[in-house]
Amino acid sequence: MNEELIRILVATDNHVGFLERHPVRGDDSFNTFEEIMRTAREMEVDFVLLGGDLFHDNKPSRKTLHRTMEIFRKYCFGDRSVQVQVVSDQKMNFRNSSGCVNYEDPNFNIDLPVFIVHGNHDDPSGDGDLSAIDLLAATNLLNYFGRAQDLKEIHLAPVLITKGSSKIALYGLGNIRDERLYRIFREKNVKWVTPAENRQDWFNIFVIHQNREGRNSKSTITEQMLAPFLDFVIWGHEHESLINPWESSAGGFFVVQPGSTVATSLIEGEAKPKHMALLEVSGKEHRFTPIRLKTVRPFIMEDITLSVAQPPLDPKDTDAVTEYLAEKVEEMIEVAAREHPPDPDYPNLHLPLIKLRVDYSGGFSTINPQRFGQRFVQRVANSEDILLFVKRRTQEKGKKTAA
Amino acid sequence: MNEELIRILVATDNHVGFLERHPVRGDDSFNTFEEIMRTAREMEVDFVLLGGDLFHDNKPSRKTLHRTMEIFRKYCFGDRSVQVQVVSDQKMNFRNSSGCVNYEDPNFNIDLPVFIVHGNHDDPSGDGDLSAIDLLAATNLLNYFGRAQDLKEIHLAPVLITKGSSKIALYGLGNIRDERLYRIFREKNVKWVTPAENRQDWFNIFVIHQNREGRNSKSTITEQMLAPFLDFVIWGHEHESLINPWESSAGGFFVVQPGSTVATSLIEGEAKPKHMALLEVSGKEHRFTPIRLKTVRPFIMEDITLSVAQPPLDPKDTDAVTEYLAEKVEEMIEVAAREHPPDPDYPNLHLPLIKLRVDYSGGFSTINPQRFGQRFVQRVANSEDILLFVKRRTQEKGKKTAA
Ligand SMILES: [Mn+2]
Ligand SMILES: [Mn+2]
Ligand SMILES: [Mn+2]
Ligand SMILES: [Mn+2]
Repeated sequence: MNEELIRILVATDNHVGFLERHPVRGDDSFNTFEEIMRTAREMEVDFVLLGGDLFHDNKPSRKTLHRTMEIFRKYCFGDRSVQVQVVSDQKMNFRNSSGCVNYEDPNFNIDLPVFIVHGNHDDPSGDGDLSAIDLLAATNLLNYFGRAQDLKEIHLAPVLITKGSSKIALYGLGNIRDERLYRIFREKNVKWVTPAENRQDWFNIFVIHQNREGRNSKSTITEQMLAPFLDFVIWGHEHESLINPWESSAGGFFVVQPGSTVATSLIEGEAKPKHMALLEVSGKEHRFTPIRLKTVRPFIMEDITLSVAQPPLDPKDTDAVTEYLAEKVEEMIEVAAREHPPDPDYPNLHLPLIKLRVDYSGGFSTINPQRFGQRFVQRVANSEDILLFVKRRTQEKGKKTAA
Repeated sequence: MNEELIRILVATDNHVGFLERHPVRGDDSFNTFEEIMRTAREMEVDFVLLGGDLFHDNKPSRKTLHRTMEIFRKYCFGDRSVQVQVVSDQKMNFRNSSGCVNYEDPNFNIDLPVFIVHGNHDDPSGDGDLSAIDLLAATNLLNYFGRAQDLKEIHLAPVLITKGSSKIALYGLGNIRDERLYRIFREKNVKWVTPAENRQDWFNIFVIHQNREGRNSKSTITEQMLAPFLDFVIWGHEHESLINPWESSAGGFFVVQPGSTVATSLIEGEAKPKHMALLEVSGKEHRFTPIRLKTVRPFIMEDITLSVAQPPLDPKDTDAVTEYLAEKVEEMIEVAAREHPPDPDYPNLHLPLIKLRVDYSGGFSTINPQRFGQRFVQRVANSEDILLFVKRRTQEKGKKTAA
């Protein structure tokens, strides 16, 4: 084992509890979050870094809380020795009453530390201004960091993590309403606290959970706004997996957008392969290795235009249109089946998500998606909403949904 | 230290989270629950036994959950060695995924075990049929037992606890709707599982959370219905503290009703001193020592009849009636102050609960209790509902509230 190499399993937007009561998809978010934690354990990484939206609901159901606690309990405890050290002020870094990183509490045998910032889905709220993540921190299951104390002036104090001579300054910022954070950045009220000594020796990571791209420039944090001394930025919140880091035009740092680990919207960005990743740091060098997630439900999305069908369709012949669309869905199911054979560990996971966007301009009528879906109930995971009728294909482009 | 003596701190109906948003009383339930856990630690008891209604709300607020977790985390962990052994099938006894009593999980340094049954306030519900207590069990903060698997036939399998030659068979039954449980008992579908060997050597404790007394015999579990081989019955749910055990007329066992640790109704039964207790068991001998709780807010309740006031009051002179009642409240505040001097550890705990039941028969009118209370805002904890107007004093007698 390389005593200088810090190995980090990175994932974001796990949205556990998403559609938890759905008869087919109910376990999807849990299966994948468990895959992540199991992988982290198998790879014996130094720690797991989560980029927010661990929970889908601000108030997760009791069952979701319970299942999530059981996953952490199953994978974070054991007799390995943790190789990294947190050398910054732990009381300042973490939200919990013990005042230390979870694996240093002598009453808990934690051997896989998890560090997490909150997202907009699991942000602090209500009496006590607590996040659901605070319940996991209170029970010492993880380390919750990156929570701004004062929105007038945000002090980004890093968690300083060392292993041998490798040193990571881990900056994090839990989600803040985009317009507000934009203003705080613009007014230069984000203060980056840097290590007192040998600032240039640290590998500086930043975890952020905000809009990265958007129409409205006043609600989008850009790479240009970030500190130029950063080395690597992990961008949560955006669900499309852009898993190959790019060098920012703004400075000398790399940016990656791991994307969500479960599709919460049946849109193009979520139909692409989903990932976690291994980030390895040695000195100022790093390597980033995408890991495709195996427990992601197949999702096939296509567009079809009724007016150009061959042979041509009669707009008044609803039965013919229905059969035409059903045939198309059959083809999509076949594509999904070729790519994702059944897995005995996940009995229903091969049932695909199918989204067929139907351009019905040219005098065609819509047909009832629920009724259409009935024939696919046992074969498509989202039989209730396979079809989406649009007038012109472009309407849907660039539509943004809450991530 | 006596190696045969099993020492148990007993409490019930802690109702944490009760009135948590009340400006004066919000911390009361937490203060007292923390007093119990602190006392258990200071006394170095072998374990804590809780009789249900740990939480006041079936869905405790995030803040209440968080505060409760922090209390368990503060008092249940450490380096003492636990002297008792659980020799029954732990997987059968407890609701958790680890399948063992919490202090035997090698990943947790528990040194003060807590055993608990659920009450009607924190009973299992919703998707997954989980109790809020399950969240504490999943995070290994306590041991949740006594949950009936099958209501057609309830198998009461005890937690068998030994220390040297002393042996406790701890039976528990989380709350079941009274009418239903009555029927199950009547139809002889409660099966008491007894230790395979030397049945007569065990000290048999039963923790139950049901109505003990009530008008309707079909919704009241009586001592006669319980197994005659029991030695000691701890009766939760009833909030009046009847802290001196009585020998049951039904069999050879003792019964105690510790009562709630916070007043959730301003009725006579809750105005009495509140208690936890130390139950000590050595062989088949036991000793039960009440411990008066110190953090309970003073509660003075009195009755007054306007028509017999001296000098007589004019029913039409509302101002005079108001002043008469205010004077009475002043006297009650003085009584409370004499008995409960301010405690610097609990800055507002000396503010008393005051309940004055006013018999206004004889042509008197009621006066607005909110307006009346305004003059006592800084001096009475429940200034908003000091006065209760009744027509004849007997109306209130025997009134039952959900416990
Ligand atoms: Mn988000
Ligand atoms: Mn998200
Ligand atoms: Mn009760
Ligand atoms: Mn109660």
